Amino acid sequence: MSLNDQELIAGFEKIIGKTQVITAPDDLEPYLVDWRKRYRGQAIAALRPGNTQEVSEIVKLCAANLIAIVPQGGNTGMCGGATPNSTGRQVVISLNRMNQVRAIDTSNQTITVEAGMILQSLQEAATAADRYFPLSLGAEGSCTIGGNLSTNAGGTSVLRYGNARELCLGLEVVMPNGEILNSLRGLRKDNTGYDLRDLFIGAEGSLGLITAAVMKLFPRPVANWTALVAVPHADAAVELLNRFQAGASAQLTGFEMMSDESLALLKHYYPALASPLSGPNAYEVLVEISDYESEEHAMQLMESILEGALESGCASDAAIASNLAQARKFWDMREHVPLAQADDGPNIKHDVSLPISAIPSFIATCNDMLRAKYPGVRVINYGHLGDGNLHYNIAGPSSAQTEEFFTSKSKEIQALVYAEVEKLNGSISAEHGVGQQKVAYLKGHRGEVALGVMQAIKHALDPHNLMNPGKVIAS
Amino acid sequence: MSLNDQELIAGFEKIIGKTQVITAPDDLEPYLVDWRKRYRGQAIAALRPGNTQEVSEIVKLCAANLIAIVPQGGNTGMCGGATPNSTGRQVVISLNRMNQVRAIDTSNQTITVEAGMILQSLQEAATAADRYFPLSLGAEGSCTIGGNLSTNAGGTSVLRYGNARELCLGLEVVMPNGEILNSLRGLRKDNTGYDLRDLFIGAEGSLGLITAAVMKLFPRPVANWTALVAVPHADAAVELLNRFQAGASAQLTGFEMMSDESLALLKHYYPALASPLSGPNAYEVLVEISDYESEEHAMQLMESILEGALESGCASDAAIASNLAQARKFWDMREHVPLAQADDGPNIKHDVSLPISAIPSFIATCNDMLRAKYPGVRVINYGHLGDGNLHYNIAGPSSAQTEEFFTSKSKEIQALVYAEVEKLNGSISAEHGVGQQKVAYLKGHRGEVALGVMQAIKHALDPHNLMNPGKVIAS
Repeated sequence: MSLNDQELIAGFEKIIGKTQVITAPDDLEPYLVDWRKRYRGQAIAALRPGNTQEVSEIVKLCAANLIAIVPQGGNTGMCGGATPNSTGRQVVISLNRMNQVRAIDTSNQTITVEAGMILQSLQEAATAADRYFPLSLGAEGSCTIGGNLSTNAGGTSVLRYGNARELCLGLEVVMPNGEILNSLRGLRKDNTGYDLRDLFIGAEGSLGLITAAVMKLFPRPVANWTALVAVPHADAAVELLNRFQAGASAQLTGFEMMSDESLALLKHYYPALASPLSGPNAYEVLVEISDYESEEHAMQLMESILEGALESGCASDAAIASNLAQARKFWDMREHVPLAQADDGPNIKHDVSLPISAIPSFIATCNDMLRAKYPGVRVINYGHLGDGNLHYNIAGPSSAQTEEFFTSKSKEIQALVYAEVEKLNGSISAEHGVGQQKVAYLKGHRGEVALGVMQAIKHALDPHNLMNPGKVIAS
Repeated sequence: MSLNDQELIAGFEKIIGKTQVITAPDDLEPYLVDWRKRYRGQAIAALRPGNTQEVSEIVKLCAANLIAIVPQGGNTGMCGGATPNSTGRQVVISLNRMNQVRAIDTSNQTITVEAGMILQSLQEAATAADRYFPLSLGAEGSCTIGGNLSTNAGGTSVLRYGNARELCLGLEVVMPNGEILNSLRGLRKDNTGYDLRDLFIGAEGSLGLITAAVMKLFPRPVANWTALVAVPHADAAVELLNRFQAGASAQLTGFEMMSDESLALLKHYYPALASPLSGPNAYEVLVEISDYESEEHAMQLMESILEGALESGCASDAAIASNLAQARKFWDMREHVPLAQADDGPNIKHDVSLPISAIPSFIATCNDMLRAKYPGVRVINYGHLGDGNLHYNIAGPSSAQTEEFFTSKSKEIQALVYAEVEKLNGSISAEHGVGQQKVAYLKGHRGEVALGVMQAIKHALDPHNLMNPGKVIAS
């Protein structure tokens, strides 16, 4: 009683119209491969529904025919979570047409948006209402809020505002059977049973398909001050963080660390973005303070904390951005480290998190271990120190060798690094998620009991394993 | 092959020792009734394990004999969630002996504690480490952190720091089959599969038994300034809130509203706590600002925002506490409103939340409706306006009539109030949870789809319905 492909496609066309069912190979291509071209799959079609009801009807048709679904937003994921598998028996549901603001409530500080809205558009909608939406990451011009929620995106403002999870108050979700779960309430407190919202957030579409969300807004700061600070070692960076936390509390909105090797790479590929501090320094830290009073107050706060840090020795040098262009440059430095890396060739990436107190010993141990085993290896180590999140990436001794080093050493180096992460009670995926890339690591990381609970939940909500199968957990 | 009661008790004694298995009626009594004496049950025994391994073994013995378990912390809940049922076929597991700090990490700003630790002891442990643990509520001298997490407790600092949920980074949970789920990691970012932590938080022990948690710590503010502000109507209170949010952002740590009738009741039962403002005022608001710089800076900030509010007319009068004793008095006023209510007799309680923008119309509509239908009815309306959380409580026309009014009108008044809450997309339980009290309301509030998902999860994790059955969701 299952439909064949042509009947299925006719069914989809009946629901969303002929033009929104993409099957021509050239048109389908962008839906089948991730942006870094690391993952590629096949699909019966890519479907572009225009509203939640259409999503529901598509999912019901798929469920009735046991056709698996891969939800896709901006297709900017790092772990292949939005790419179909190679069987050609799946459909991609793209949320890109569902990109509208449904409601904005400035008194309640909330905005209700459809899942396909581009993150940057959401930031702009907030600004237009004289509010601030803090989620910010490299892909913000392409990624969608639905993808951000499905992967619990992090980025550069987690320190103050939390991950995507903490910014969400309510969801609308199409369940694996096509039913619509509507909990689009803009409430700060709601203790009426199980917290389903947080179950869908970070589930990468494997439990249901997020179609809309109520997100928090914040008052807009009147001033942002940025500084670049040289620190002599990783312990000093942690001390500097603690000083800023004690002195600025929630006004501390950015704390990003870059190692000397990251800065050297940046200087090589983007000379205009070379550090203004005299170096080399073991680490340089980008610090941002936001203020609700005045430019003067922000500057005084920044200066007084930096003064203490320079005196104590946890900072050895500092430059405060004296204008917006300079502040922008400091952020550009940070954001171009991964781009310089990409220019340099492939590297072995680790998106890890650790208790902040354990970061210095993690770096020291891993650096020693890797340098002893792989002479000349380069450790491109940078990230969101304030969140305990390091991008600890490893490249071969010279640019010429990166490709071969990447291919031959990835597995063993990842095993070494992840073992150290587990020893220190960290995580092997801080902000990038699991996708298809890290499914095999999950049992070792979360443990058998947690994996069993996850599988029980998956099976209870998606018994035929139709929602993004093969992602997050093995079926 | 099930054991009889005597064999079961012998089994428990073998695990935790004779003295920790409470069966003598007088000793058992406190475990069978909630603190307000609204709910009463029976139990085979109350069990007081001393560590997680013992909890695990108890749960395994219960699971093997299909004996249901009621977890209990400080027994201070409002909805009967920690009281056994009347069958006498359940056991109470009290976590009170598991009250130790396992670890404290000031650089990572985390503390790892056992579930039976009293909230106030946790606050004190943080202070001793020169850190701040913000969760604070009336019952803090008796309630436990395990209970706070199981009910996702709110309290007076949610506005800045979030509910218990937002303060927790990791959990240790004994599952319904006795397995131990250990995810006691102190990480701000961890995207490795489903968010189980948030599923157990707020589940009131119905999916597993929380035995330990990693909680966030914060730097201690150097100054707190408190003011009492008169506002002419509820709309003005929302405007005042938005002004403080824009001007103080995260430094705004308290925003509590009390209606004129709340203040009149307070004055009657606690004359020493009468408002220092000339009144009556439609509402008075307690505002608290925390500061990380200095007393002076906090005072200036408070004064400048209040000045703007008085000019705009959203505030009509204000008193800033000039010393700690006066600040303490303002908080005492707020905390004694529920006590004055209790002195006055029973009242029909509603712990509701709403989008903050909808609160003025909610109050106006409900007040009008109730006053028209029940002439002379008193609306004791106060709460955490900054969180959209109102305690909208209804008492009969005079103290003499409260008992009869409570008994005869509870159901119909609750139905009226809840209908208005649903109309405005609010919640019927903002911070008190569901327990046994509100199980019947859940389907109407969350909807059939959400309830179906909740039941599927409950069934998947606890197929024999042994963990706090009858609480949160109907089996």
